[in-house]
Amino acid sequence: VTPDATSRPVLIMIRRAVAAAAPSGPRFERLDPRSPQIGVLDLGITRGDGIFESIGVIGGVALELEPHLARLGRSAAMLDLPQLDIDTIRAAVHAAIDAHEPAPELLVKVFVTRGPEGNSTEGSGTPTAWVHAAEGPDYAAERTHGIRAVTLDRGYRRDVAVTSPWLLQGAKTLSYAVNRAALREAGRRGADDVVFLSSDGFALEGPASSLIIRNGARFRTPRLDSGVLAGTTQATVFRMLEGEGQTTEYSHITDSDLRRAANIWLASSGRLIVPVRALDGVEVPVDREMTARMLRGVAGVPFALPVGLERH
Amino acid sequence: VTPDATSRPVLIMIRRAVAAAAPSGPRFERLDPRSPQIGVLDLGITRGDGIFESIGVIGGVALELEPHLARLGRSAAMLDLPQLDIDTIRAAVHAAIDAHEPAPELLVKVFVTRGPEGNSTEGSGTPTAWVHAAEGPDYAAERTHGIRAVTLDRGYRRDVAVTSPWLLQGAKTLSYAVNRAALREAGRRGADDVVFLSSDGFALEGPASSLIIRNGARFRTPRLDSGVLAGTTQATVFRMLEGEGQTTEYSHITDSDLRRAANIWLASSGRLIVPVRALDGVEVPVDREMTARMLRGVAGVPFALPVGLERH
Repeated sequence: VTPDATSRPVLIMIRRAVAAAAPSGPRFERLDPRSPQIGVLDLGITRGDGIFESIGVIGGVALELEPHLARLGRSAAMLDLPQLDIDTIRAAVHAAIDAHEPAPELLVKVFVTRGPEGNSTEGSGTPTAWVHAAEGPDYAAERTHGIRAVTLDRGYRRDVAVTSPWLLQGAKTLSYAVNRAALREAGRRGADDVVFLSSDGFALEGPASSLIIRNGARFRTPRLDSGVLAGTTQATVFRMLEGEGQTTEYSHITDSDLRRAANIWLASSGRLIVPVRALDGVEVPVDREMTARMLRGVAGVPFALPVGLERH
Repeated sequence: VTPDATSRPVLIMIRRAVAAAAPSGPRFERLDPRSPQIGVLDLGITRGDGIFESIGVIGGVALELEPHLARLGRSAAMLDLPQLDIDTIRAAVHAAIDAHEPAPELLVKVFVTRGPEGNSTEGSGTPTAWVHAAEGPDYAAERTHGIRAVTLDRGYRRDVAVTSPWLLQGAKTLSYAVNRAALREAGRRGADDVVFLSSDGFALEGPASSLIIRNGARFRTPRLDSGVLAGTTQATVFRMLEGEGQTTEYSHITDSDLRRAANIWLASSGRLIVPVRALDGVEVPVDREMTARMLRGVAGVPFALPVGLERH
């Protein structure tokens, strides 16, 4: 199958996203993603009040589907959303993949909002939920040659997820305006992406990715109690590295650890693994062989590496 | 006209929200707010990437309309949105009010999102925009008897709006999940609302309101460079107070200033002015006479005060 950037995205609206919903009618239905589907009173749009997951799909296989669904459930709990019907959401993900024309890589996104505004501040109690499947951009150049990142202050101490859970650090919410503003700031600084720093000087994550660094012989990612999202792709990379006998650790990573890292990667569901080739304008070595192994490990299935990585 | 909680909300979709848009076709049109109007790829819902304003309307008059429109324009600039066509948005606000059945009080909300996802991270470049007008809840009890507030950490230092503009503090964005989580936390603590504190111990604002306190003879609100939204209702109250010869000031308000305040109010476009009758469970005196004067000053037009305030 030839990649086709104009292939048609698939939308599956989920009618029974909540565990307690009455078991009548279809659980989900395919609708036209080009037609309006969301009401102007949906709290997802009026307040960014909802959650999402992005799931990479390679050769028709949804990568780390169960960890993604588990994280969606944790995000729902952090936002006091009703308990989700994960079986229905899983079935809708499969239905979206099945309905999409075959493609080497897809990105499937699952959205759950608090639903329409109701009489209480909690809304109507009926979440709006859907799954969208589409081909993503071509990340071959980023995966092969790396990206330029800048560090930006996230404003929070590394411990706010513990002290102040209402700040929702560690939940994957729809309130991503700050993440997007940070990416625009990176663009103004001539870079492609961001590594957020806590206000007390620790490296955290990107606006849409997990941070992995190599300090000496150790592969490190920030501790999950430091307000970062638990990375599904990062977790797969760590399992692959541990299988190789490498040392991995979840630890506090200082700004200076970051700057003396031998290599830096950002892990996410769409781009999978990209090396950072410059941090705040300072060159960082790119390890193509390790990047190729990480990409193969993340894909888990036969996967066409970019030309620049395939010989590794 | 009798207030009618079941009166029909009005939706005006704006087709030319951007100053540079081609001047053809209607600028806006009235549509059914109960029908879906927003696409699932709109960055307003997928990323909370947009801005809004809430405008109180009393007896058909939009309160502080020009300050609200000016703030919408400032929020747009902070989010690097295209320059808005404020004349069109103003006309759409008037159209929504005119189309709504007469009511003593309306709440008009203006939304502008970055529009559908496009090929770049900046989206398609065509914002989605609409105006929604509806009767709000009945706030008579809150205005008369006051509300219970708790202080919650906002996680940011008071200076982040200056040091880290990508955190969008001071912009009124659609990414309000944290504000809503804070209100749920207030509910768990037996309270109705929140006063956010900066991580360095200064009182800021509510999740959807400005803070006004009285310390001795001075009426105080936090400085606008401390990451708070420039309050339109608060500004009107200050003008009213200054007209009375009272002393007003924009200053850093410490946690201890807040706790020794003679009175505390929260100001916003829907509830207008509500006194705080308890802060973190400690009783705060309610000044009904001053609250009644503030409400009259904010309304600016003949306004039916709640029964408990009308004799003041």
